[in-house]
Amino acid sequence: MVSDSDVTAPVAPPAGERVGRLQSLMARYGLDAALIMHPRDVYYYAGTGQPSNLWVPVEGEPVLFARRVADWVRRDSHVRIVLEAASVRQMRDLLRERGLLPPTGSVLGIEEDIVPARIVSSILAAFPGIRPMNVSPLVLRQRMVKSEGEITAIREAAGVWSRIHETVLSVLRPGITEAELAGAAYGSMLAAGATPGNSMRRWDGTAAGTAIVASGENGWRISGHAFTVTGVGTSPAIPWGFSTRKIERGDLVVVDFGVLYRGYHGDMCRTYALAPVGERQRALWDRLQELHQAVIAKVEPGVTGRELYELAVTLVSKAGLGDFFMGYGQNQGRYLGHGIGLEIDEPPVLGPAASEPLTPGMVITLEPKFIVPGVGAVMIEDDVLITEWGSEVLGTVEQSLFVIA
Amino acid sequence: MVSDSDVTAPVAPPAGERVGRLQSLMARYGLDAALIMHPRDVYYYAGTGQPSNLWVPVEGEPVLFARRVADWVRRDSHVRIVLEAASVRQMRDLLRERGLLPPTGSVLGIEEDIVPARIVSSILAAFPGIRPMNVSPLVLRQRMVKSEGEITAIREAAGVWSRIHETVLSVLRPGITEAELAGAAYGSMLAAGATPGNSMRRWDGTAAGTAIVASGENGWRISGHAFTVTGVGTSPAIPWGFSTRKIERGDLVVVDFGVLYRGYHGDMCRTYALAPVGERQRALWDRLQELHQAVIAKVEPGVTGRELYELAVTLVSKAGLGDFFMGYGQNQGRYLGHGIGLEIDEPPVLGPAASEPLTPGMVITLEPKFIVPGVGAVMIEDDVLITEWGSEVLGTVEQSLFVIA
Repeated sequence: MVSDSDVTAPVAPPAGERVGRLQSLMARYGLDAALIMHPRDVYYYAGTGQPSNLWVPVEGEPVLFARRVADWVRRDSHVRIVLEAASVRQMRDLLRERGLLPPTGSVLGIEEDIVPARIVSSILAAFPGIRPMNVSPLVLRQRMVKSEGEITAIREAAGVWSRIHETVLSVLRPGITEAELAGAAYGSMLAAGATPGNSMRRWDGTAAGTAIVASGENGWRISGHAFTVTGVGTSPAIPWGFSTRKIERGDLVVVDFGVLYRGYHGDMCRTYALAPVGERQRALWDRLQELHQAVIAKVEPGVTGRELYELAVTLVSKAGLGDFFMGYGQNQGRYLGHGIGLEIDEPPVLGPAASEPLTPGMVITLEPKFIVPGVGAVMIEDDVLITEWGSEVLGTVEQSLFVIA
Repeated sequence: MVSDSDVTAPVAPPAGERVGRLQSLMARYGLDAALIMHPRDVYYYAGTGQPSNLWVPVEGEPVLFARRVADWVRRDSHVRIVLEAASVRQMRDLLRERGLLPPTGSVLGIEEDIVPARIVSSILAAFPGIRPMNVSPLVLRQRMVKSEGEITAIREAAGVWSRIHETVLSVLRPGITEAELAGAAYGSMLAAGATPGNSMRRWDGTAAGTAIVASGENGWRISGHAFTVTGVGTSPAIPWGFSTRKIERGDLVVVDFGVLYRGYHGDMCRTYALAPVGERQRALWDRLQELHQAVIAKVEPGVTGRELYELAVTLVSKAGLGDFFMGYGQNQGRYLGHGIGLEIDEPPVLGPAASEPLTPGMVITLEPKFIVPGVGAVMIEDDVLITEWGSEVLGTVEQSLFVIA
């Protein structure tokens, strides 16, 4: 009833498969039930983004509690039992009526990394004798390997980046501000059907726009929220992202946007330059492009994030650029990328501690960068699917430095 | 060093005043200290949006813990003691070194409505013998009355809405999609220096874009996240906001965007119509406009949110539109507006329970609407400052139905 069928086809497989897999993990780790509340996780298991909570017993059918609009939830969700409940107590009472209340001493999975303390307190009060356990690691572990539908969605999200790129090429010129460039590019992304903002599993990152345009000296001014090209923002209130700086001849311009499309993310970055391009700038870019392509060539099942990171570090070191790779000084990050999916930043982190082999179906983003004070920042980012036999870059924008004459 | 002075002037008064006021409230409610972690609250008291935590003892100087980039934090913040700490334990150790650790049995204020359970657990583990108390109600209470600088920032944010309005007037025509309209309008907002997204004190609302364009039948399809004109979104993953529906002749089009500018929000809405405008549509609009202006005329110090809401209900009832005011059926809200500021939705809620008088310096948004299945939605929203003698509408867009011929 509600929306165009061409854009609303759920990307989830039948919920049973995913819930069944979670139940296996829960059994292995000793959980008797889990209350999934984080909207991105509820969507993953239940196929609805409406405010809802999903009760998953270690065995048997899940129960989806719609906070409101139960009809809408029933239409979107694969879950068969959909009840209406606006509070933790109502959920508890409905479970009790159906004989589904877990006995005293049971272990209940809760997403403790993201659900606020007050809500967890209300759960513990409503379910006396329950022992809470953080269920998020199991959920995130499961979410690492994507289904066909999810891969399609991420491919489409990365595809929207072409619109951003075309817009940047058409409006970037001396005198335009970072904000004007960002506005045009962001607008083209939304016009293509993307959703404003990105989903982040960070309680304190709700306002962290991932619309980064960093030109000239803003390329090497690294804000505190991440080890990357951050930009400086438009005020001390939110000191990252594009600013109102005018872009000038000779500037390098990093454009790093996360695209949220049909619930999934593409996360890409390209660097543009307003001519003339200095010798040092060009050399930095050339080393970066070589590095990026060399790393991508090594992505295949069985390789670890650590090996990819170490390959990058070795190449960087040979090029004599170790001091500027992934930042500089105290703001130098030790990573090369991360998983993407329902959230813009998911496991695995690709860095020195990433000892687990990549497997087919994972989608990672690789985002090498050099940040050199006085020179500028060069960065490239691509979303890469691990396939049976190797890997595939999901976006379609050329891996080049784009120079505006 | 970092950004253009014209856009980065902090809107906060010296931090001491605000911290001092919080300390008075803490003393009254028996708190010995508070650990302020929510970025919007940290910005309110400390003047920096960088990832930081603010330790406020009930007496004496606050301590600001910068997670990183302490130099940047020191430049932006009014707080005199800025230390670097990346974890709760580091903060605890630094407090202990300085003899500032509160004794066993002390009451520590924590923002339990928004800080995740796992972080609160780590605080309780690091500060054994501490008793936690939710400090957010005190913070939100204090934040209700805005300073001169905050009022200026909100006025500027509401002013940016003129850009959205001009863009809508220039691009709205039969055949444009809601997404295309939203993209153009959103882009113009960012080009003016606004930040993507809105700050919301909702742990699960991180992806709830407040870029609503709802046309035709999407006007009466109310999604579950709020009692308002929600739109249906572009997929079940995030089922609200603009969709890819084509806007046609005879449609009413509600455009409701929150503008985040220099950390503060303007929250406005206007309704547009593609000719021909039906008789019922015109009548709905006329009643809405009369109602809106009648309510605004009553806004002054001493009036309560309940009185404003009851006035609206009385007028609506006289017009025979009670079944469609603020929604319909099960999706009918009992409110008329809310406070705005560092977050898009702050106390007070203006509804039947709002018994406290409005006072000068509060900024509220009034957002009446009629949602009529089969006809469409009409909505208007304006941001209103309570002044010494009455009130002032902060935006500049005319209060009319804008008909595109």
